[in-house]
Amino acid sequence: MSEAVRASTKKKDKAGTRVHRAENVVDLEMSTGADSHMSLRLWLRLLTTTNLVQTELRRRLRSEFDTTLPRFDFMAQLERHPEGLKMSEISRRLMVTGGNVTGLTDQLEKEGLVARDADPNDRRAFTVRLTPAGRLLFDKMAQAHERWVVELFGGLSIDDKSKMHQRLGKLKAHLLDCIDSQS
Amino acid sequence: MSEAVRASTKKKDKAGTRVHRAENVVDLEMSTGADSHMSLRLWLRLLTTTNLVQTELRRRLRSEFDTTLPRFDFMAQLERHPEGLKMSEISRRLMVTGGNVTGLTDQLEKEGLVARDADPNDRRAFTVRLTPAGRLLFDKMAQAHERWVVELFGGLSIDDKSKMHQRLGKLKAHLLDCIDSQS
Repeated sequence: MSEAVRASTKKKDKAGTRVHRAENVVDLEMSTGADSHMSLRLWLRLLTTTNLVQTELRRRLRSEFDTTLPRFDFMAQLERHPEGLKMSEISRRLMVTGGNVTGLTDQLEKEGLVARDADPNDRRAFTVRLTPAGRLLFDKMAQAHERWVVELFGGLSIDDKSKMHQRLGKLKAHLLDCIDSQS
Repeated sequence: MSEAVRASTKKKDKAGTRVHRAENVVDLEMSTGADSHMSLRLWLRLLTTTNLVQTELRRRLRSEFDTTLPRFDFMAQLERHPEGLKMSEISRRLMVTGGNVTGLTDQLEKEGLVARDADPNDRRAFTVRLTPAGRLLFDKMAQAHERWVVELFGGLSIDDKSKMHQRLGKLKAHLLDCIDSQS
């Protein structure tokens, strides 16, 4: 790899993982080359873009509904399960700690948006469900959320979106293989 | 949109934001239609894939280097600035709170991986830089990190990666426009 190419490469690589390497930098670059660069650049851009979308959705949920992404995600889980969900199920689905789920449930219950029901099969357990008021509010937020996503992804044609969705599917399948084989 | 299409659409939509709508659901679906669905599905997949990669990188940093992603990112920032960075600059770049940056600096300083230097231009301020030991360790971690990214993105051909990178670029430019016009 010429010095000029390396220099331009260095400049472009915001992940900063290729600069100031030890002596095996040349070996590594020869074995992986352009493909390795492309992977790092793609990962960086994937991360940046996802963060931009998430930060903007978070900001709008806050400013238009005075709510947070975890509250929205929590209600979205319940909306899909009108029969109610156990705390442990919500926790698993949201990948947050049990403590957070308990806190969110208390908060939303106090606001009349969710209700706890005793579990007929387990005296110590209960399920959580949306109240009618919770469902009404969630519907409003979900519609706004959908409009925002459509707006934020408006820079891509439907063909762009469909192709990206396909490639992300390939990436996801491979990731699940990599992760399986590790654990 | 036929009932059959709506049913299959509902089933596919894991974001769950299209089910149980109020009366204006039909208007919304007619105005945005398939494109709106594709945006939501794409966003969901983008989020899932990014989370899978990030969780796996986090797990490997922990198991192979007994370190965390914020520590790695912190050191990556310093690696790009051998002259040192002010705490406020690190904080801004990492988008974490100043408190976290202080905590990370203390931790890494105790381990001999970073050092504080008095700022000649501002008596109350100081800059943080990697020590030689910090640089050595970071180089090792960065090489492993690059290998992992290459492995995790191995499900895509170089052409797939390059096309996805291009489309993400379009998406990012549009996002920045959307965000600018809001604030």
